[in-house]
Amino acid sequence: MPASEFQLIERHFARLGAARADVLLGVGDDCALLQVPADRQLAVSIDTLVEGTHFFPGVDPESLGHKALAVNLSDLAAMGAEPAWVTLALTLPRVDEPWLAGFCRGFARLAARHQVQLVGGDTTRGPLSISVQVHGFVEPGRALRRDQAQAGDQVYVTGSLGDAGLALLAAGGGYDAGDRLAALQQQLDWPQPRISVGQALRPLCRCAIDISDGLLADLGHICEKSHLGATLRQAALPLSEAVADYVRATGDWSIPLAAGDDYELCLVVPAEHQAEVGRIARTLDVPLTLIGQMEPGAGIRCIDAAGNPVSDLQGGYDHFRNT
Amino acid sequence: MPASEFQLIERHFARLGAARADVLLGVGDDCALLQVPADRQLAVSIDTLVEGTHFFPGVDPESLGHKALAVNLSDLAAMGAEPAWVTLALTLPRVDEPWLAGFCRGFARLAARHQVQLVGGDTTRGPLSISVQVHGFVEPGRALRRDQAQAGDQVYVTGSLGDAGLALLAAGGGYDAGDRLAALQQQLDWPQPRISVGQALRPLCRCAIDISDGLLADLGHICEKSHLGATLRQAALPLSEAVADYVRATGDWSIPLAAGDDYELCLVVPAEHQAEVGRIARTLDVPLTLIGQMEPGAGIRCIDAAGNPVSDLQGGYDHFRNT
Repeated sequence: MPASEFQLIERHFARLGAARADVLLGVGDDCALLQVPADRQLAVSIDTLVEGTHFFPGVDPESLGHKALAVNLSDLAAMGAEPAWVTLALTLPRVDEPWLAGFCRGFARLAARHQVQLVGGDTTRGPLSISVQVHGFVEPGRALRRDQAQAGDQVYVTGSLGDAGLALLAAGGGYDAGDRLAALQQQLDWPQPRISVGQALRPLCRCAIDISDGLLADLGHICEKSHLGATLRQAALPLSEAVADYVRATGDWSIPLAAGDDYELCLVVPAEHQAEVGRIARTLDVPLTLIGQMEPGAGIRCIDAAGNPVSDLQGGYDHFRNT
Repeated sequence: MPASEFQLIERHFARLGAARADVLLGVGDDCALLQVPADRQLAVSIDTLVEGTHFFPGVDPESLGHKALAVNLSDLAAMGAEPAWVTLALTLPRVDEPWLAGFCRGFARLAARHQVQLVGGDTTRGPLSISVQVHGFVEPGRALRRDQAQAGDQVYVTGSLGDAGLALLAAGGGYDAGDRLAALQQQLDWPQPRISVGQALRPLCRCAIDISDGLLADLGHICEKSHLGATLRQAALPLSEAVADYVRATGDWSIPLAAGDDYELCLVVPAEHQAEVGRIARTLDVPLTLIGQMEPGAGIRCIDAAGNPVSDLQGGYDHFRNT
């Protein structure tokens, strides 16, 4: 006897992630009932991963469960918000218990790590796709938006750029990663949302964004919303050995600048906070690198070690570019 | 030049539905920022509609936009909650501007009618599917849950039962609806969430649920969560002429009882409130019918006009039943 939808949902989703006192009614009614602290604003974001568009068929379900939540937590990180609750709309072509168990394992481990509780869900039949909405708290007026940058502010980025993009290129046969493939694949499949970075730097920051669509496209949103331009120093961009070698061999900067799928943060901070940012950066579990500054004007310039503009930059990932 | 994802989103989703003062930051940043009233709990629900599972390929995009929001608002109605915000994760096989414009028209009209603002979204490429999350407010301790019914409580249902199911049967060639098809189709394609009913009856009700999976399945959830059974009087069930004729001709009660896709409410009210419910019912824009009562025990019995049990009841809609 196959599991019914209700049994399926109850078995896997009834208790997933942290157990929070502010969840008054969780999975299993028409709605979840939640208590937002009286002195906090609610931050929400929804994202979808579709098989064949955002991940390959046959991907490890545990990493997929992790990533489906991670890409959403990354949006909370970019607001400097504290994660609280998550809902999950899961569309599956068939009931596959081992797959579902693996998916939930990856999802639940990351949820528990960030004190997030699953409070609602919907499981339907169809082509594999996962929509996740995250909910977090932020102090009134303290969220890291995109429209607050000022000329002269410094631009930072967490982690390294282009590893996920290079893993995708390798998967498509466009690059032989050799014995570096596993490390690149780790960045693609198991992104770590930079929650602690967003929270630690929020008092100093003016803007933040996650760079899942590529640094150029996402910093471009900050430029556009803040009515400014930016200059990046190419030599300062943090690259893993694999990506640095690839760029050296090919001259192709699109992988670190525009390939996307890096769930790192780009942060904009007034220059006078540079020393304080440096002090906080040493306490973080991920590198933080100063890569450029905001300027009057529009658009993003990239300059080489001699200060000359680099040409032929490509924009970020765009799901509908080629239609 | 095709529209980019960002332009697409901005054009259609930047301002959709009501303009609410409690939306501090809407579509266009990593997260939306929202202010829940200090004296309210937050009610949330997420639901997905998948092409081929929940609607036919080629369905009118305007009715689809309406329905995608309506089925979610119906969950808020079933909690007695006041609608506020909505997020939309839309997966599309291609950019189709007229389709998108129609979808947004249907979605926006219903959103505006219920004072709901779109606050976030994600548009991705893939097989057509729509995930919507609604957010509403409810007074602490006053939400209409599933687990509060008591023996002797009366069971009501809004509207009529089985019209959507009969429309689906007609679409599959299993029924010739003749000149009644348009009216049945209207119930299937343009369900009206019973927000005002949930709010008007909340002070009297002990439980409510929406019956989108069919009356038997959904009242079954109230029975299970409240550790009770229920008896329904078959002759009292509110049927349109079309469904009444169909049942008379075929003896098939599964259409009104179990076919699902009726976005009506089933409400459970203490018997002493019957007169007051009647007074409120006359002010509503939809019929409210007393169909049975909660009883000790488990499961749902249906009795005929002579009080004899009716056999062979079928359960509700289950997405994975046949796998």
